[in-house]
Amino acid sequence: MANPILEFTPPPRLLLGPGPSMVHSRVLRAMATPLLGHLDPTFLQLMDDVQQLLRNVFRTANRFTIAVSGTGSAGMEAALVNLIEPGDPVVVGVNGLFGARMAAIVERCGGKLFRVEAPWGKIIEPDNILKTLSQSGPMKIVALVHAETSTGVSQPLEEIGTLCRDHGCLLVVDTVTSLGGLPVEVDGWGIDACYSATQKCLSCPPGLAPLTLSERALTVIRNRKTPCQSWYLDLSLLADYWTEGKRAYHHTAPISMLYALREALRLVEEEGLAARFARHRLNSAALMAGLTALGLSPLARNGPRLPSLNCVTLPAHVQDAPVRASLLQEFGIEIGGGLGALQGKVWRIGLMGESSTRSNVLTLLSSLEKIFLRRGWIARAGIALEAASQLYLSQSQGTHTEAPAPTHA
Amino acid sequence: MANPILEFTPPPRLLLGPGPSMVHSRVLRAMATPLLGHLDPTFLQLMDDVQQLLRNVFRTANRFTIAVSGTGSAGMEAALVNLIEPGDPVVVGVNGLFGARMAAIVERCGGKLFRVEAPWGKIIEPDNILKTLSQSGPMKIVALVHAETSTGVSQPLEEIGTLCRDHGCLLVVDTVTSLGGLPVEVDGWGIDACYSATQKCLSCPPGLAPLTLSERALTVIRNRKTPCQSWYLDLSLLADYWTEGKRAYHHTAPISMLYALREALRLVEEEGLAARFARHRLNSAALMAGLTALGLSPLARNGPRLPSLNCVTLPAHVQDAPVRASLLQEFGIEIGGGLGALQGKVWRIGLMGESSTRSNVLTLLSSLEKIFLRRGWIARAGIALEAASQLYLSQSQGTHTEAPAPTHA
Repeated sequence: MANPILEFTPPPRLLLGPGPSMVHSRVLRAMATPLLGHLDPTFLQLMDDVQQLLRNVFRTANRFTIAVSGTGSAGMEAALVNLIEPGDPVVVGVNGLFGARMAAIVERCGGKLFRVEAPWGKIIEPDNILKTLSQSGPMKIVALVHAETSTGVSQPLEEIGTLCRDHGCLLVVDTVTSLGGLPVEVDGWGIDACYSATQKCLSCPPGLAPLTLSERALTVIRNRKTPCQSWYLDLSLLADYWTEGKRAYHHTAPISMLYALREALRLVEEEGLAARFARHRLNSAALMAGLTALGLSPLARNGPRLPSLNCVTLPAHVQDAPVRASLLQEFGIEIGGGLGALQGKVWRIGLMGESSTRSNVLTLLSSLEKIFLRRGWIARAGIALEAASQLYLSQSQGTHTEAPAPTHA
Repeated sequence: MANPILEFTPPPRLLLGPGPSMVHSRVLRAMATPLLGHLDPTFLQLMDDVQQLLRNVFRTANRFTIAVSGTGSAGMEAALVNLIEPGDPVVVGVNGLFGARMAAIVERCGGKLFRVEAPWGKIIEPDNILKTLSQSGPMKIVALVHAETSTGVSQPLEEIGTLCRDHGCLLVVDTVTSLGGLPVEVDGWGIDACYSATQKCLSCPPGLAPLTLSERALTVIRNRKTPCQSWYLDLSLLADYWTEGKRAYHHTAPISMLYALREALRLVEEEGLAARFARHRLNSAALMAGLTALGLSPLARNGPRLPSLNCVTLPAHVQDAPVRASLLQEFGIEIGGGLGALQGKVWRIGLMGESSTRSNVLTLLSSLEKIFLRRGWIARAGIALEAASQLYLSQSQGTHTEAPAPTHA
């Protein structure tokens, strides 16, 4: 026998990576609530609550608004494999890892892929989508990542939603790193299928993928000529489980995760979306001011960037791995490294949900200052903290009201 | 706005349905543990622990032993869609709902399906598998349900494992309702792909599907000519995330669920498999003695039946829905009704993991007695409790040692 496996006690961690984010104690307590059966009338009521709360955060009236029993990537796969039949033409915007993942899934389920690319760190230009829609024949779907977690780029969507309506195709959007942290307007922007994940700006543990479908998308799924390749992610079957009055058994829902999501969404409602978005913007601006003082610069330099995922380029003298190792081992702080071609070249710092606080921004900047000072990369302590403080001060004196920590904290 | 959504407090429930089962307080506490990042060194160590503990309960040395990020049905889909390429001939034993689900998934992923059927409540006869293997040309896979949750039948596997080796095909087995409650011998029986679920005999909340693959199965997956249709469930990609030294990012693991599974598996180890199986057998025998006294009889009358899922036929005068409604509303006890053609005709009573205790057996029988007495279906109170007590007494005096409640309880 190997060594006995003892009780698990994780070391304390400040989670400022690309997810999971910090989880509120109320949500952790919800996770520990005794279970109900997945067909218990009280549990079915809880599913209704989750649907209502998800509609509010997605800003949609879509009847079909559920939580898929898997992580964010399961939501991506569910959205695509249900809408695509073999041979269907699909445009995918690829400007980062998660756009590339969408493209891979389109190919695996037999879609005819049309890539619209942009360099990592840039948005997909609406004009390039238009060009493909105009020149490559009718398309069934345009799929885009709203919040590209690999680059920190925030993709504008409103104009593309209009293009999709004009060209009679469906718009599928990945909001894994935006939902609950910056505006997502499913109905307002004309999104037909939108999915997210629980462990980012919603600050719930990972394990569920919120997903909403417009009536147009649902009709496309209901009228498929071939069955969806996946039984587990078949949204027409899931619709019958999530619909009041039907409740046809499909699979056993991850009950505790739904308890947690309900509580996390209640916290979002208590804070209010506008205040929550302002908090994310403010803390991100302060972090970026501090990082700039340390010589780092946003990868999305000239375009819209995410307040939830701050992707910064390292100057040549700043080493990636040793600094992240020090942050984790000495300070208990997790930040993310670069993915793919950006490995070693950028950091991805998440300020999502409960992780987006002034205290966390200052703690991280102070820790980075110590490491940078010790390595001789900066000459004096305090420069990053000063820059962040000035930003906070300017915002509280300016036209913006200061966004405090979440009111429920 | 609709009514405000208030704090959720579930009513007390004794879970004696087909899953989820009761969850130990240590596992609930594990669910509420603060999160680590999914690439944190401490979390990767926890993944190693889970793998080791799962190998012990699966009784396998398989290197590839993981928890799939979905419920049991995701484990079923993962096992099948990774092993099957379009056109591959696959034998599926269908004698209940979950065999039928396997067959549906085989068809959705393009396999050529050969059904070997038996009536619901009967086992799949090894001779019928042999006949198909001998007469219908070479097969790639034989897929069977070890513990048919819709009927309570326990499928013998050892002989079929030998048949599969002799005929050069892989054996895929569903142990959703057996793993941790009755013997499952992955290596001993020659099983190549075996999956389960957390919320049954392992007594963990639902949300993960333990899965193990033999080297033979892994080689088949590594040598596929076409990519697996699913990206989310692609086991060759998951292998790189779960392998020490590789840890290639695939998707964000459901961290809290893995905390819980680790703790649930520790409880299994503390009790010991032999004691745990004896406990499941004893409590099931006592329950069945009591139910027989009430006029109910096992659906699997003449064959091996599951101690974890007790499926009993109702006499004509016993109404299904009103009794289950009374059990839930008056007594807070959940049991399961029949699925498919058995709806209204059987009950499915789970005694799985933490739910399998003498106290729960007596509580359920006492509650049923009250309902049956009130409706005039029995003449006096105590008959079911007496039968169960006698069974417990006879077992404690006989050659079997009495299996107490779990030692950690």
